[in-house]
Amino acid sequence: MFYHVQTLQFEAKPDGPDPAFAKRLQEVLGGKWGELTVALQYLQQGWNCRMPGKYKDMLLGIGTEELAHVEMICTMIARLNEGAPLSVQEAAVSDNPMLAAIYGGSNPQHVINNGGGGYYQDSSGVPWLGAYTTSSGNLMADFHLNATAEMQGRLQVARLYNMTDDPGVKEMLRFNLARDHLHQQQWLAAIEQLKADGLEDLPVPEAFPNETEQNLDFAVQYMNCSDGPAAGDGPWASGPMPDGSGRDFSYEESPQPHGDRPVLPPGDPRLYGTPKPDMAPDNP
Amino acid sequence: MFYHVQTLQFEAKPDGPDPAFAKRLQEVLGGKWGELTVALQYLQQGWNCRMPGKYKDMLLGIGTEELAHVEMICTMIARLNEGAPLSVQEAAVSDNPMLAAIYGGSNPQHVINNGGGGYYQDSSGVPWLGAYTTSSGNLMADFHLNATAEMQGRLQVARLYNMTDDPGVKEMLRFNLARDHLHQQQWLAAIEQLKADGLEDLPVPEAFPNETEQNLDFAVQYMNCSDGPAAGDGPWASGPMPDGSGRDFSYEESPQPHGDRPVLPPGDPRLYGTPKPDMAPDNP
Amino acid sequence: MFYHVQTLQFEAKPDGPDPAFAKRLQEVLGGKWGELTVALQYLQQGWNCRMPGKYKDMLLGIGTEELAHVEMICTMIARLNEGAPLSVQEAAVSDNPMLAAIYGGSNPQHVINNGGGGYYQDSSGVPWLGAYTTSSGNLMADFHLNATAEMQGRLQVARLYNMTDDPGVKEMLRFNLARDHLHQQQWLAAIEQLKADGLEDLPVPEAFPNETEQNLDFAVQYMNCSDGPAAGDGPWASGPMPDGSGRDFSYEESPQPHGDRPVLPPGDPRLYGTPKPDMAPDNP
Amino acid sequence: MFYHVQTLQFEAKPDGPDPAFAKRLQEVLGGKWGELTVALQYLQQGWNCRMPGKYKDMLLGIGTEELAHVEMICTMIARLNEGAPLSVQEAAVSDNPMLAAIYGGSNPQHVINNGGGGYYQDSSGVPWLGAYTTSSGNLMADFHLNATAEMQGRLQVARLYNMTDDPGVKEMLRFNLARDHLHQQQWLAAIEQLKADGLEDLPVPEAFPNETEQNLDFAVQYMNCSDGPAAGDGPWASGPMPDGSGRDFSYEESPQPHGDRPVLPPGDPRLYGTPKPDMAPDNP
Amino acid sequence: MFYHVQTLQFEAKPDGPDPAFAKRLQEVLGGKWGELTVALQYLQQGWNCRMPGKYKDMLLGIGTEELAHVEMICTMIARLNEGAPLSVQEAAVSDNPMLAAIYGGSNPQHVINNGGGGYYQDSSGVPWLGAYTTSSGNLMADFHLNATAEMQGRLQVARLYNMTDDPGVKEMLRFNLARDHLHQQQWLAAIEQLKADGLEDLPVPEAFPNETEQNLDFAVQYMNCSDGPAAGDGPWASGPMPDGSGRDFSYEESPQPHGDRPVLPPGDPRLYGTPKPDMAPDNP
Amino acid sequence: MFYHVQTLQFEAKPDGPDPAFAKRLQEVLGGKWGELTVALQYLQQGWNCRMPGKYKDMLLGIGTEELAHVEMICTMIARLNEGAPLSVQEAAVSDNPMLAAIYGGSNPQHVINNGGGGYYQDSSGVPWLGAYTTSSGNLMADFHLNATAEMQGRLQVARLYNMTDDPGVKEMLRFNLARDHLHQQQWLAAIEQLKADGLEDLPVPEAFPNETEQNLDFAVQYMNCSDGPAAGDGPWASGPMPDGSGRDFSYEESPQPHGDRPVLPPGDPRLYGTPKPDMAPDNP
Ligand SMILES: [Ca+2]
Ligand SMILES: [Ca+2]
Ligand SMILES: [Ca+2]
Ligand SMILES: [Ca+2]
Ligand SMILES: [Ca+2]
Ligand SMILES: [Ca+2]
Repeated sequence: MFYHVQTLQFEAKPDGPDPAFAKRLQEVLGGKWGELTVALQYLQQGWNCRMPGKYKDMLLGIGTEELAHVEMICTMIARLNEGAPLSVQEAAVSDNPMLAAIYGGSNPQHVINNGGGGYYQDSSGVPWLGAYTTSSGNLMADFHLNATAEMQGRLQVARLYNMTDDPGVKEMLRFNLARDHLHQQQWLAAIEQLKADGLEDLPVPEAFPNETEQNLDFAVQYMNCSDGPAAGDGPWASGPMPDGSGRDFSYEESPQPHGDRPVLPPGDPRLYGTPKPDMAPDNP
Repeated sequence: MFYHVQTLQFEAKPDGPDPAFAKRLQEVLGGKWGELTVALQYLQQGWNCRMPGKYKDMLLGIGTEELAHVEMICTMIARLNEGAPLSVQEAAVSDNPMLAAIYGGSNPQHVINNGGGGYYQDSSGVPWLGAYTTSSGNLMADFHLNATAEMQGRLQVARLYNMTDDPGVKEMLRFNLARDHLHQQQWLAAIEQLKADGLEDLPVPEAFPNETEQNLDFAVQYMNCSDGPAAGDGPWASGPMPDGSGRDFSYEESPQPHGDRPVLPPGDPRLYGTPKPDMAPDNP
Repeated sequence: MFYHVQTLQFEAKPDGPDPAFAKRLQEVLGGKWGELTVALQYLQQGWNCRMPGKYKDMLLGIGTEELAHVEMICTMIARLNEGAPLSVQEAAVSDNPMLAAIYGGSNPQHVINNGGGGYYQDSSGVPWLGAYTTSSGNLMADFHLNATAEMQGRLQVARLYNMTDDPGVKEMLRFNLARDHLHQQQWLAAIEQLKADGLEDLPVPEAFPNETEQNLDFAVQYMNCSDGPAAGDGPWASGPMPDGSGRDFSYEESPQPHGDRPVLPPGDPRLYGTPKPDMAPDNP
Repeated sequence: MFYHVQTLQFEAKPDGPDPAFAKRLQEVLGGKWGELTVALQYLQQGWNCRMPGKYKDMLLGIGTEELAHVEMICTMIARLNEGAPLSVQEAAVSDNPMLAAIYGGSNPQHVINNGGGGYYQDSSGVPWLGAYTTSSGNLMADFHLNATAEMQGRLQVARLYNMTDDPGVKEMLRFNLARDHLHQQQWLAAIEQLKADGLEDLPVPEAFPNETEQNLDFAVQYMNCSDGPAAGDGPWASGPMPDGSGRDFSYEESPQPHGDRPVLPPGDPRLYGTPKPDMAPDNP
Repeated sequence: MFYHVQTLQFEAKPDGPDPAFAKRLQEVLGGKWGELTVALQYLQQGWNCRMPGKYKDMLLGIGTEELAHVEMICTMIARLNEGAPLSVQEAAVSDNPMLAAIYGGSNPQHVINNGGGGYYQDSSGVPWLGAYTTSSGNLMADFHLNATAEMQGRLQVARLYNMTDDPGVKEMLRFNLARDHLHQQQWLAAIEQLKADGLEDLPVPEAFPNETEQNLDFAVQYMNCSDGPAAGDGPWASGPMPDGSGRDFSYEESPQPHGDRPVLPPGDPRLYGTPKPDMAPDNP
Repeated sequence: MFYHVQTLQFEAKPDGPDPAFAKRLQEVLGGKWGELTVALQYLQQGWNCRMPGKYKDMLLGIGTEELAHVEMICTMIARLNEGAPLSVQEAAVSDNPMLAAIYGGSNPQHVINNGGGGYYQDSSGVPWLGAYTTSSGNLMADFHLNATAEMQGRLQVARLYNMTDDPGVKEMLRFNLARDHLHQQQWLAAIEQLKADGLEDLPVPEAFPNETEQNLDFAVQYMNCSDGPAAGDGPWASGPMPDGSGRDFSYEESPQPHGDRPVLPPGDPRLYGTPKPDMAPDNP
């Protein structure tokens, strides 16, 4: 259950309007790697977590904080949209190329649909999608996803930081950068803790009975299907594998097929495919 | 540029039909973490890679291999769909609950749309989406994503392995499990190599001028917004941060807001929002 | 900013497993009219609300409560999924048609992707979409949407109530029905209050300068474009309009066009449309 | 069954080109609240209506008219797109900021995909979605949705009216505003008629057996989960409920959880979640 | 502008209920190749058609008829859904595998969302998408699309015909098959007429100045990038091209690249990509 | 199985940057008719093809080539994005309307998400969708789709050719135009070959037992549901049908319904629709 205080976690007040930046800022609200994704993903992982204790508590703790980030960015967007030029005529007034750039670079739905406010869409106006979150039930797999989510998110915020001169916007983004920094660190620390607690190891899932992986070569051999010769120079093509198995990577420069050339059966005649049933060649 | 041989990378031949499993197998063809995702993601990262050499070569090498996995699974799906019951009447014949389960558990589009073949949809029939791939231009962020992609993928294949008794299907899935095992290892090795080459470090992006992150506390302090007390027990709430900065995590059990209670301006009167312009309260 | 307590707002514990009902219950978690929609919609309207005070406070108050409903239903889904048959073989065991029905009626992604947990998808497995929420900036328009959202939601829960015999599930659904009942009432009360406060009236937006609606007949005349004669019998085809304008509805049984038969210009020749430029007929 | 006349219901002829406005006008063709939504929604509700007579006839009558609105707006868009600048070079010619604004503010797909014509997308270019329509089978719930659809639609048209100076465009939009005005009134009148006919009352669905809603307090008590104190000042927090039940709203400023702190079972070991089966804590 | 009569174009009355077939029938209502697609596509092409006369008239004539097909199928779906089992318990009653198959094979949204009626979704429950229609402005390209749409549609209906024994359903589907037959023929006839009228020829668009296609070999040479040797046996690899140019196809069994090995520039340092700016290798 | 060479099939190097054109070029990478669609569609048809030999070989051959086109366009986009203005301030510098147009006309996700690279989205930024491809199992239906795909694709490329002055871009597009020209020809040749081989004829599917199409008139009669009288002038309204059946098209100017006015049953009372069960009128 949740409680809300209307005071923002951190200030979200621009020094002036910039509807074109408001459009761009949507990416970190409703984009694939935006605040809504991490908020709903961490909460979902927390609710689905089958182990009471520190992991579940952290997932719910950070997930709840991320809701506050959605709130901050939505507020910032509404403030940046003040003074959006409503028409080409307004945009073109007095031969001002900045207004033209703002008009072309702004999001029409911000005014037509939202009356100036923010929404759950990305910087192209594409709606946020439930498929952006993952909660697999395996914490090792999910913590790696959470770590990259914070990396992708911090990268996007750092780029946005370079797309504005507004001191108020930059102030808020510095806060977001700091939190994304922290959260990266936390998920990486949690990955190590999972190993220390003996809960999961590599490869994920460790519990899959590897003795049944009869094709052992396939588990170590890099098959270079492109013609870049340097692919063999990395630590992924020779030397010990990081799974602690004692096995070494190997490198195959000319990978060959190991299967057959498939021939499909002619299909149910009631589906009217090609070939017609009476002319189907002999198929295995 | 690509070349194709029709021989499969590994055999994809079931011992018998199972249209209900064919539906489930779509998840690893056209689902968020399926083979199409990793194929197109690694290729996209390779094409967009701005550094010739071993990283680019590996991205294109593995990405090209993944196309062969799409092909194998698509072939397997077509073969599993042989003998799909076309109607309730067929499904209910001779009081056979297995046929009823198969009918209910199969994907109608496999027969109606595809004539029995596979397509780029997940196990619910939801189409694959271009937004499933990411190519950020920052290899550290992307390699973490690639590692989790292989973990999520291997996890799904391991679960599917437990959903069938068909020896031919299990044979193919063991191959996929082995390759997913290998690829996990490779992305993790590549992450270490990026650090060793001095190309990127934590937090991503390392190059963002941290001196401008004036709110240093925000970069170390875990704010526990949920009431799970064990959240403070993990290595993410105290002790050294993994970024090598020498700073320690700290823990705040009662996190407080640092911003103001926002009041939005009344808005452009031409947008007809609430309140009407003439009754707008004084807003800052 | 948000705070979370792990205790549920109301109990979410089934008496036994029912993976097929778990699939159906997703509709009120991640469907168009589900709990995630109302949670994110009310919060968005609250954040974008330009009038401090009772309306904004209520939007944020109810929106925050709805997050607790997402949590309850996600928890219920995880519990209902216990014991999902993983294969046709399990489903068909001992000639048990109930297991066959459960297998066919369950959601494969619940096990393959989520390890048994819930996600932000509807009962077909279609991901939740950011476009499901609306925050127009006009409270009258939005409160009508909120009222119908609670009606659609309560209707769906009432139907689901009839699809299960599980006492624990029914207990939770009665709670949801009661809250949906209350929330319907609240949005309807808020609509009346908006009028009483002089903030908005009909038609929305009232402030649009009606004197410029020169085609006054078009604002009162029902044009019956279908051949159902009873359409003229309702209070929408004669008698006073509810907008208090003193005007009466009128009824036109044989509506006629008021425009021209459009002829489009031949188009930019660089777009290679039909007809080719040199053969374009004379167009106005 | 339908018949079509090529003459438009109302004139759709701009005085001049404006490709940037053409992009914006797509919102009311293929946006969530656009003409295609109301056309297909009312028809769907009419086709699914289980009561012959005035309601069904009106649904089909208005739905059919809305198809004419899609046609008018599509025609207007094609005409507004005449003279779209095809390149930056054209847009930048003679230092004209208006052309730059038009180029940036136009929709590339209008020319690349459609040869200048309209399509079923919104003002961001996001395709129209079947999930935008609802036909629940309960007319009270659906008429409330229809009323808000006309409100949201009229609001968007009124905003668009302020984004253009073109007399021909404004002439058409005035027609649309008048029809949206009328349709708002009609759905509100129909809501009252449903009550008068005894077909449905509040809460929707009235027929759900409220005696089984054992948690009566939950049906009247506003739980204020945000810290805005004015939420208690509205008629939704005290005084009689509009459902005619004679009950009063009540207000709870410090809402408490009524459930337990959930602990999930460890899960099927064949799903490889966390924790591993052999280390799962005792779970209820 | 449109007019509607409530009488169906053809009877849509099943002899009995079949909720599982109702789910499947959604494919030809709201699937990619369903009736809604062709209705909205032909109308869109008609509205955007820049040439008054027979082509525009036919597009609007057939498009309008297709709306009647949507209506018929929606009606059929509502009737087929009568008697849907609402729960596993109902489905499993009296050990009846047919009910189990129906339950598993039915669409939960038909009852939960629609009260038994149809909607604009496909047979997986995925919403119809505006991107399914195309109106390019070039009639030759679009008529080929229309022809394949009728082929795909007739194919799907023919398959559905084999999935039911219900005489009433089969009666309606025969009508649809006949209309799809006719419409295929009509679009193919229209393609020939476009050529006869000199409006367009091959390749589409014919008007593109081929003299600027300096790489003439690329316009005739089949490059076989797969290892299937029979690809060279078809009329697409030798002999005259159908464009009447007098040129012959040619066949290249070992196609070679004609470009360079691309090296991308290091990128704007403010985007924090890999490599870091100061370590970027020399790039052309 | 696939092999990749890093050398491009054809050069993809612009003479200078143009981020606004990069946005537009996305249409032919990740749009409905872009290179990714044809690549994945032809491969899917090839993998699902049930007839070994020339058709399967060609499908896989052309499909594999199309992957090279995705690669070329992705590379071109990355190069065109060099020098994208990151902010309004940069765009407005020195009163340069070209920069303003570029800023407004560029895709923010190219920089924020991709670090300048390309992705699988269209020119509006809408993600590519698995539903864009079709593989029906009937080669006649699919080859018609493939032919129109190349027509739509070549049309879009020809339009893009007119939207740039850059010699390097035009050079690459000429290559694409030539390949699209060739591929159109090839699919048309393959259609004729299918007929010559006796594999399929019109109407698709020819094998559907037409003797059961008892409503023969419906298979020949054009019903003109719009009021355009010229619709009767085309070869689709009189004269021989192209299916070789010897039958003639006929023309009906005033098409009439052939069904009944449907009345739906009142519905399951547990779904709470309108009317309530006890007031349901007598329904057939
Ligand atoms: Ca965050
Ligand atoms: Ca793989
Ligand atoms: Ca709720
Ligand atoms: Ca309208
Ligand atoms: Ca049809
Ligand atoms: Ca191509």
